This record gives sequence, structure tokens and C-alpha cells, in this order.
Amino acid sequence: MSKLLVINGSVIPSDKSNSHEMARIFLEEYKKVNPNDEIIELDLNKLVVGTNVLTTETFSTYWGEEEGMKYINQLKDVDKLLVIAPMYNFHVSGMLKNYIDHVALANQTFSYKYATKGASIGLLDKLKVQILATQGAPKGWYPWGDHVAYLKGTWEFMGAKVAEPILLAGVKVEPLSTQSPKEIVSSITSDLIAAAKKF
Amino acid sequence: MSKLLVINGSVIPSDKSNSHEMARIFLEEYKKVNPNDEIIELDLNKLVVGTNVLTTETFSTYWGEEEGMKYINQLKDVDKLLVIAPMYNFHVSGMLKNYIDHVALANQTFSYKYATKGASIGLLDKLKVQILATQGAPKGWYPWGDHVAYLKGTWEFMGAKVAEPILLAGVKVEPLSTQSPKEIVSSITSDLIAAAKKF
Repeated sequence: MSKLLVINGSVIPSDKSNSHEMARIFLEEYKKVNPNDEIIELDLNKLVVGTNVLTTETFSTYWGEEEGMKYINQLKDVDKLLVIAPMYNFHVSGMLKNYIDHVALANQTFSYKYATKGASIGLLDKLKVQILATQGAPKGWYPWGDHVAYLKGTWEFMGAKVAEPILLAGVKVEPLSTQSPKEIVSSITSDLIAAAKKF
Repeated sequence: MSKLLVINGSVIPSDKSNSHEMARIFLEEYKKVNPNDEIIELDLNKLVVGTNVLTTETFSTYWGEEEGMKYINQLKDVDKLLVIAPMYNFHVSGMLKNYIDHVALANQTFSYKYATKGASIGLLDKLKVQILATQGAPKGWYPWGDHVAYLKGTWEFMGAKVAEPILLAGVKVEPLSTQSPKEIVSSITSDLIAAAKKF
């Protein structure tokens, strides 16, 4: 039996969210294949790990036992991580950035970041990650805004094995922009199911 | 007489901050050249625009008159913007992301984001921007983490004219990592002064 952690980095209510619809299809299949796994959900909208931003003032407690360390320990405890990551203004949500700022901690989730090029070692080396991402514009319209590359790079830096991310792009451009989340996501159902089977 | 807005996106206290030292040198020269300009400083550590993250709950007030719109109006009122942007975990600080999420608003700072490729129009077309950035690793070690490209792209998307960003990279790698901010930044003093003269 494995433990799967699901992180919600979307601010949109579930029934209107394309990324939630992606996660729903993915998890439905995942549960079929792994009926005994434990699934733990973190909604960053409702947790300090998502809402508390790093500032001069929060710095001294940011990685405390009840904040950063709590979620670092959780990442060491689970086997798999599903990241729900819509794009907001060319990057991940502020909540997801806050989460990453909480768990990216030297000598806990990585080492040797500044040793020499290629020498860093990620410490979450038992973790498998699947990224489910969406963005309003088609891929390539705004090439400086690549939240998927950032997420993949960051989780690999922390030692995780990252499965091929699934990006649903162009959801705010016609024809997708006129459709419901169910209709939009139906175009990639088979990709989601295939990824869930392998995860 | 112009108005220059300075945004502090660093969580490190001023006297220990490389990016603050960069800003100090830049502004010292800028004030010599433009002694009558008004300089307005925003410390994102201390303002809701930096500390309040977008969530399901904050969504309805995020761009209200006292929050997003207040800072959008400020951007329309000033002539120039200096962005102090250290890297945290391969991107800008959460505070600076929060700021951008507050001011990137359709039909206020941009239009036609999702029309066709290249068709978007930025509405901050009187604004000049200078980015002063730092990062711990030398440029290119972690290529998926390019906060300067993200910032330049985002401000250009909103219509601003962005001067060549100044990036001080490798500040956590020897030899820079053993030096004080004053020593570290001294290597690029002439670049900062030249940029300030032209800004």
C-alpha cells in the first residue's frame, strides 16, 4: 500500500476548474488500479503552508515544526505526489510558490545547491511526482512563462522522480474557452488514464 | 519631474542584502542625475499587496479599490519602476508574485491576452522598468529557474519598456559567498551607475 499526496494549487472552485477535472479523471483511474492506497489531500487555499508568504517577519518561523518541517516530514512519509498546478500570470499560483518555499530547505530536501554545477543532491529520492498543469494561452505564446518547467525542475532538484507532466494549454482561447471543464478535459482523457495507470 | 517607484521584493534585512546594496548604488546615482524626482518606496514585506496571496477566499476582494486597484493606479501614476528581485527557490519571492497577481488585471494593465499570438496589448505603456536581480547560483546552473526572464516578460506584457535587467548571479558560490554585500556588489558598480544614468 502506498500513500499518495494530492496538492491543490488552484484558486478556482472545483466544479469550475479544468485542473480539478484533470485530477478527478486521473484519481478515478488511479484508485481503480491502486484500491488500497491512502490518498491525502492538501488544499493550499485553506492551509498556512499555502497562505503564509515568506517575509522578513515570517522568516524565523517559516520552517518550524508546525509549518515547513511538518510538510517536509509529510513529503518524506508519502510515496507519491500529485500536483494540481494551473498557471496564474505566467507562473504557478502564489499558494504553490508558498508551499515550495516551505518545503525547499537545505539539508532536508536537498544538499549542495551551491557546490558546483550538477553537484546538488535531492533528498526526496523516494518520491514520485505527477504534475497536472493548465494554462490559458497555448504553449509558446509567452515562452518566459513556463510553470511546468519550473515545477519539474524544482521537484527533480529535490530528488523526486517526475513523470512526464501533463499540460492542458490554451484553455482561455477558442474553441476551449467556450467549453465546460468536462468538455475541455475530455480531449486528454486518454493521456490522464494512461499516466494514472503507470503512476 | 518624474516619479520613480521602488518595489522591494527581498525578505533579507537591508544591511545584509545584495539586492539592496545594488539598489542603493543605483539610486545614489539616479538621485544625482535626477535631483528633483519623487521616489516612492514599497516594501512588500509590510504591505497587503505583498503578503496577501490569491486564494478562493481572497479572490473577490483581491483587485478591490484598497488592494489591487490601488497599486494599479499607482503604476499608472508613476513614470518609472525599480524592481528589487532576489531569487528564492528558482523564482521571485512569494511577495513579488503576490504583487504581480494584484496588478496584472485584464483591461487595466493589459488586454487581448488570449486573442491570438502576439496580439496582446499592454496598458502600462508610459512606464519604464529597471530590474535589479540576484541569484545564489551562477546563471545557467538551473536553467528552468529564470526569474529575470519571467519579470522582463511580464512587465513587457503589461506594456512597460524594460531596460536591460542587471543580474548579479552566483552570490552563494565562492568567491562571492565569502564576501559582504558591499564587496560582492562592487564588481558591478559601473553597470549600476551606467544604468542609473540612462534610466
